[in-house]
Amino acid sequence: MAFDPQALLALPPLETVHRFTERDTILYALGVGADELVFTYEDGLKALPTMAVVLAYPGFIWRDPRYGVNWQKIVHAEQRTRIHRPLPVKGEVRGETRITAIHDKGAEKGSLALVERKIFDTATGDLIAETGMTTFLRGNGGAGGSEGQPPKPVAVPADRPADASVTLQTAPGQAVLYRLSGDLNPLHIDPKVAQAAGFERPILHGLATYGFAGRALLAARCGNDPARLVAMDCRFTAPVYPGEALETEIWDGADGRLHFRTRVPERGVIVLDNGVAEIG
Amino acid sequence: MAFDPQALLALPPLETVHRFTERDTILYALGVGADELVFTYEDGLKALPTMAVVLAYPGFIWRDPRYGVNWQKIVHAEQRTRIHRPLPVKGEVRGETRITAIHDKGAEKGSLALVERKIFDTATGDLIAETGMTTFLRGNGGAGGSEGQPPKPVAVPADRPADASVTLQTAPGQAVLYRLSGDLNPLHIDPKVAQAAGFERPILHGLATYGFAGRALLAARCGNDPARLVAMDCRFTAPVYPGEALETEIWDGADGRLHFRTRVPERGVIVLDNGVAEIG
Repeated sequence: MAFDPQALLALPPLETVHRFTERDTILYALGVGADELVFTYEDGLKALPTMAVVLAYPGFIWRDPRYGVNWQKIVHAEQRTRIHRPLPVKGEVRGETRITAIHDKGAEKGSLALVERKIFDTATGDLIAETGMTTFLRGNGGAGGSEGQPPKPVAVPADRPADASVTLQTAPGQAVLYRLSGDLNPLHIDPKVAQAAGFERPILHGLATYGFAGRALLAARCGNDPARLVAMDCRFTAPVYPGEALETEIWDGADGRLHFRTRVPERGVIVLDNGVAEIG
Repeated sequence: MAFDPQALLALPPLETVHRFTERDTILYALGVGADELVFTYEDGLKALPTMAVVLAYPGFIWRDPRYGVNWQKIVHAEQRTRIHRPLPVKGEVRGETRITAIHDKGAEKGSLALVERKIFDTATGDLIAETGMTTFLRGNGGAGGSEGQPPKPVAVPADRPADASVTLQTAPGQAVLYRLSGDLNPLHIDPKVAQAAGFERPILHGLATYGFAGRALLAARCGNDPARLVAMDCRFTAPVYPGEALETEIWDGADGRLHFRTRVPERGVIVLDNGVAEIG
């Protein structure tokens, strides 16, 4: 089908029901490199707040041919998460996913699609988290879209040194492990698909990098208590290759928020930028 | 309950039904350190033959208080597997688990329990694999048991150099990952439980080491074709700590069988011995 922004914006919410177990919660934690017992052992287990991004995840929706998207050219541009209640370590959740905006950047560049998901606890009906992603559809521009502009990124105060810095190591098999939490886009495992998309080899999921950044925030500013990280937004600026170390720099903001970004020190590249987090 | 060998031997087979998906097959492969696409990517996926040990696995049965076993003192002593058909990468299997022998080694040493499992494909009824383990119940001896002797281990021909050698690295988090395939014995993750059992820290599952040895046999003698490894028996002789490298030495036997053992070169300790494998 042809790419039709107005038709995509008019779609009803995509409902997903997701039953998950402690095993899934642990697997997510391992997928983002966590090794603390509190995140990996069922005795006293807590869920990482960034796990919201895989709860009631509707799958890699853009591969659906009815969306008319050149899915091989997609890049994940931004992620936003707000936690309303500490995530359960098992149970059933229900997701409502909506494409809320498509911003046309022209035929040469593509479009930015904003997809938002509300996550409810099925048993209680409570809204437990909201998560949103901005996806750069590099192969689909010039077809019009939403009025207005996408949300403005918030710059980190890089004119002064960071107040904290946490370096975490990804494993060579990090993407292969992370994808078992649900995002099976072959870009992250299949060398041919990665090359067709213009990468030298499979890249790490942006959301895995996001999980590493979340772990850095937890370690540096939350005493590793997952209940304290209540919101976390950022932009993905460059790919990470599995096996690289990730350094997350954190600035304490005047308004109580945290600003953060993540670098691959080995290549001197900022891979995640414009980070803003709220601590409860 | 009291430990009663005759009552345990008289138990009816324990039936288990296990539905599994490609995700489980990949997770098993990652649990034993595999990184080849054929074992980790759903496109063209094949199951490692050693995955039989987790199919229709009834769980850590010895923790059931009705068995009267001091489960914290258990050590996995031997493993045997015979593959009748290449393992499916997803589907449903049914297991029949029997305690087939309990050999009393006296009140000081404990007992050796042999537990055998037949694994059937539910859809076709075919027997796809048989796997057996010998478990050393270190806290339960002197209560009598089976007539006869346990199977004799087959010595490797260590008087001559091995014909092949494969070294594979375990990860510091190997046991935490491997246990997601079903053996949740806390000995492999909980420092307190490990110390109570007499280990300095959590040890790797014997069956994870077994999977690494199987990968070595596949790489050195099967061109990494999992259908060619049809039987694999061995004895566990010392614990492995997650993070250690494992060197598997292989001797080509005069009768076409392979003999093998696995060492931790860093400590100069043989951790898996008396290995015998059959290649199809």
